[in-house]
Amino acid sequence: MNADQNLCVALARRPEQTVSASDFMLVSHPMPQPGPGQLLVRSHVLSLDPYMASAIQGRHMSGAIAVGDVMPGELVGTVALSRHPDFAPGDLVVTRGGWRSWCVVDGQAPASANGLDAILAPVALKISPVANVPASAYLGVLGMPGLTAYALMLRCLRPGPGDTCLVFAATGAVGSAAGQIARHMGAHTVAYVGSREKARHAREVLGFDAAVVRTEPDALAQLAHACPAGIDALVTNDCGAELGGIFGQLARGARVALTGAMSQYNSAQPLPGPSLGQIIARRASVSGFVVFDHYDLMQRWRHLAASWMADGKLRFHEDRSAGLAQAPAAFTRLMRGETMGKALVVLDQPA
Amino acid sequence: MNADQNLCVALARRPEQTVSASDFMLVSHPMPQPGPGQLLVRSHVLSLDPYMASAIQGRHMSGAIAVGDVMPGELVGTVALSRHPDFAPGDLVVTRGGWRSWCVVDGQAPASANGLDAILAPVALKISPVANVPASAYLGVLGMPGLTAYALMLRCLRPGPGDTCLVFAATGAVGSAAGQIARHMGAHTVAYVGSREKARHAREVLGFDAAVVRTEPDALAQLAHACPAGIDALVTNDCGAELGGIFGQLARGARVALTGAMSQYNSAQPLPGPSLGQIIARRASVSGFVVFDHYDLMQRWRHLAASWMADGKLRFHEDRSAGLAQAPAAFTRLMRGETMGKALVVLDQPA
Repeated sequence: MNADQNLCVALARRPEQTVSASDFMLVSHPMPQPGPGQLLVRSHVLSLDPYMASAIQGRHMSGAIAVGDVMPGELVGTVALSRHPDFAPGDLVVTRGGWRSWCVVDGQAPASANGLDAILAPVALKISPVANVPASAYLGVLGMPGLTAYALMLRCLRPGPGDTCLVFAATGAVGSAAGQIARHMGAHTVAYVGSREKARHAREVLGFDAAVVRTEPDALAQLAHACPAGIDALVTNDCGAELGGIFGQLARGARVALTGAMSQYNSAQPLPGPSLGQIIARRASVSGFVVFDHYDLMQRWRHLAASWMADGKLRFHEDRSAGLAQAPAAFTRLMRGETMGKALVVLDQPA
Repeated sequence: MNADQNLCVALARRPEQTVSASDFMLVSHPMPQPGPGQLLVRSHVLSLDPYMASAIQGRHMSGAIAVGDVMPGELVGTVALSRHPDFAPGDLVVTRGGWRSWCVVDGQAPASANGLDAILAPVALKISPVANVPASAYLGVLGMPGLTAYALMLRCLRPGPGDTCLVFAATGAVGSAAGQIARHMGAHTVAYVGSREKARHAREVLGFDAAVVRTEPDALAQLAHACPAGIDALVTNDCGAELGGIFGQLARGARVALTGAMSQYNSAQPLPGPSLGQIIARRASVSGFVVFDHYDLMQRWRHLAASWMADGKLRFHEDRSAGLAQAPAAFTRLMRGETMGKALVVLDQPA
């Protein structure tokens, strides 16, 4: 790679169904230059998140990604050049820099930014290393996915002793934290996952009380066995028709948090949803959950998570791909459910 | 009709799609005789309710109706013979006697009955006439449908000043009361109905602020016009795919009460539901509502409703068919959305 060029990944076309690596293209941009108040950041680790697929379909509140756009997203990097008084070269930061080798971001948000704008602004935040935890955790358990898990358990589901909590995508970045938090709140936790390997990881590493492989023909029977008194709290990152079978196993008064629409992300058209008859019969409540509403909890969560990790009470797993050029393939694996843990791309530059 | 025979309507076959009159049959049973503690009641008015279609499909919590069974349901009648000390001939009662000219019911529930069993038990309850209100109102605005409207507004949706409340089936027995209660709670109320005649009735008689005809091609545009700041509270008796378009017009943090699954009732198979992506984006909550959980409010509601009616603040409409033999046709009209107000069958006997 030419040292004065900036390798990036852009959207090449809008996929009709599940995204594939050929929907992206590598592009080389001129090296960006920071203006006053800005920083040049060298990317070390990129975050891959399912919401990006929704943005590619033009249906995400973070904004639509147009064909030709460089993919947005969070990264951990170091400051290479600073034109902001609070940052110096070498500072470790997390920022929304996109799928780029180098990015220019602001040292602070404009005073006018608030709410979602403030969260989505390309602003660098200095991060403090946590003992024995890689900085990439700020993209996962110590970042947006971990906050999602914490806020939805604390503010939406509140499972407690005697409750059974079922977690979809339980080995993913959100689900793995959600299950462990629910367990620390006293609930019986059940993982709902896509393979036997993930089921084993959920039980043996993440501490779920039980795990059900949703692709097996007797998945609903397995679920009934794992949740004999029904499901009191459900976290789902999907709201496709398959959910209807799960709703049939809700306990009376169950709470359901919708955190995403995974099968929708894999389709250009909105798909029908689950039959809702059982929501009536079970007197259940289904609530939409958006992490952007809960950033006030971020510092509290980071402190709690760091203390839990120090005590061995919070585990996490990363799925690392090497090199920016691998980002499209890694993202495709994420959207096919083939990754385990937080999906990351480690750039082929010296850290 | 032979005086010692009891004309009844039974289910002749389980419909594949929307119920039709030919799915029922008139049957003649021997005149029933009350045992100790029981009453012989002469039916005056039968209640037709959408949940019955769900019971015909075998999917209602009140129990399944088998082919050959006499249709269950509430009625208002008078005691003809009493073998219970608290009742005398001529007493006006409401009871779950079914689609029968005469029925035998208990004077009181067995001590062991509670919860749903107590509500569904065939027990006679004496009713007190309300000035200028027909006794049939105990099947509608003063009965289960009115209680449904009250409890869902009071305990589930709680619309208030500044809120916009959209009511499905707004000229029906539940919806017409729900809209008026929401208006008395200070909300802006919008009716969602199946015809222009119903829209006019909703606005001019029931006092809705606006009405949208859902069968018109520009219904969603009409809805956006009627709810410029979005829908804060939604009552729906349906949860079919059509609901997805409505969800797109929810305000942030909207509350949705599901009171029924009308399109499901008209199908032997469970149907897919609405796309739930907008529930996430709007941070909405969708809750199942079952009136059986709220019978503790019945007396309070009847007092309130009677006082509102005396003040001209609560209107209701009845759709009366004449003669037990017309019950199947009337029920079919109800399930096709062709009735307005509470659907009743007035029996061709002297009252």
